[in-house]
Amino acid sequence: MVTFSRRTHRTRIDALAAEEPLELRVGGSALTVTMRTPGHDVELAHGFLLGEGVIGGLADVSVARFCEGTGPDGLNTYNVLDVTLADHVPPPDASVERNFYTTSSCGVCGKAALDAVKLKTRYSPADDAVRVDVDVLTGMPDALRAKQKVFASTGGLHAAGLFTASGEALVVREDVGRHNAVDKVLGWALLQDRVPLAGTVLMVSGRASFELVQKAAMAGVPVLAAVSAPSSLAVELAEEQGVTLVGFLRGDSMNVYAGVERITA
Amino acid sequence: MVTFSRRTHRTRIDALAAEEPLELRVGGSALTVTMRTPGHDVELAHGFLLGEGVIGGLADVSVARFCEGTGPDGLNTYNVLDVTLADHVPPPDASVERNFYTTSSCGVCGKAALDAVKLKTRYSPADDAVRVDVDVLTGMPDALRAKQKVFASTGGLHAAGLFTASGEALVVREDVGRHNAVDKVLGWALLQDRVPLAGTVLMVSGRASFELVQKAAMAGVPVLAAVSAPSSLAVELAEEQGVTLVGFLRGDSMNVYAGVERITA
Repeated sequence: MVTFSRRTHRTRIDALAAEEPLELRVGGSALTVTMRTPGHDVELAHGFLLGEGVIGGLADVSVARFCEGTGPDGLNTYNVLDVTLADHVPPPDASVERNFYTTSSCGVCGKAALDAVKLKTRYSPADDAVRVDVDVLTGMPDALRAKQKVFASTGGLHAAGLFTASGEALVVREDVGRHNAVDKVLGWALLQDRVPLAGTVLMVSGRASFELVQKAAMAGVPVLAAVSAPSSLAVELAEEQGVTLVGFLRGDSMNVYAGVERITA
Repeated sequence: MVTFSRRTHRTRIDALAAEEPLELRVGGSALTVTMRTPGHDVELAHGFLLGEGVIGGLADVSVARFCEGTGPDGLNTYNVLDVTLADHVPPPDASVERNFYTTSSCGVCGKAALDAVKLKTRYSPADDAVRVDVDVLTGMPDALRAKQKVFASTGGLHAAGLFTASGEALVVREDVGRHNAVDKVLGWALLQDRVPLAGTVLMVSGRASFELVQKAAMAGVPVLAAVSAPSSLAVELAEEQGVTLVGFLRGDSMNVYAGVERITA
């Protein structure tokens, strides 16, 4: 790597955030491929399946194992993970439209996306009476950053953390993909048999998109806090699912877009 | 929205970045659904198909039209776009693994991902003799930000811009999804019949991932510059495809991870 700065440049070794494809199979069939930072892949797989509504708890998975087989160097790549569901769990629908709707009509819209989440949700964050103090929330970005191991050396990772309502960090995960970081956190919780995650705060380093609110709702997380902005559909989904949505959590201020009754000052 | 800050809070109206699902169909068959900021959807579709290697130029598309049909309010949602390919273009493979490899072996790895891009690339940025001055590059983040219309009001959008080697901005697009912003820019170029994009710089507001380098290579863009960090696989792909990769382009400094011969100081 060459660094250019104020007319000077020098060559040095740089630490880069690792990125590799992970193929997730369910019962031997390919479901999805994601570009992720290797590590915590079993958590990632469980979190992804939780967010998609395929599984709702630890008892829904029978086995997760890295596929046998080798890459060009003759070693196992550890990039193919096969999850066997418990007998009572129906296999996921791998079609393109699985996240939203049946596609017979042409009316795909925000409302269809909201309705699809409603159909899949097993837990209701709306009933969670937890309260979180503003001072606890303002401390979370620093706590998240302090636990980011790879970011410090590469500057290249998104982070997600799960906190108690009193601000204790339960787990922090990093990934080149922001969705993956959240899946790793929620998969950790599922493997700890803590889902639904009543009374918790999920904090993310970037924006709050529709899909992140969906993941929070599917895991029963009552409060989602983001360093950056939410989208319009993220706010609509948070309102509908009873998720408290905090954005622009920086310094000592924040915006609350939904579920403000859970925030105490 | 309620803003909490230093013990005070107030309620105000906030502008949010719009997010809606877009279903892309090819020849009437659903190919993908993406959450995107509405607008420039025809560009988005063309850029996506270019990045996937389905099309290589304007002549490969026959018609793009919004599907007829309505949402719950009886209006066309403008969220389903159907692209008809020209007769000589084979239809895309909609399988999960289309981006990487055939999945018969278990050896999915970074090398398989690099090889898959090599197979699909029609243009060779490696042969592009363009040179870009450091001062031109350091001016691009401000130029990008100046042209971001929605970010200023919402703080919630990723941006991508296409520049000439002398720093002229050809087009800037914004989206809640960083890949979508790049697809809109590259689709704009394809619709202008400017692909392959010899002699240009693609600038993005976030990180440089494997998939963004892939999109640049597929469109024949010789220089990709990002405000934040690249991943390890992004650097490998840039080296293999002959794409100059610039990261941490901030203030008056930058890191060059591949193709440094194109950067002049």
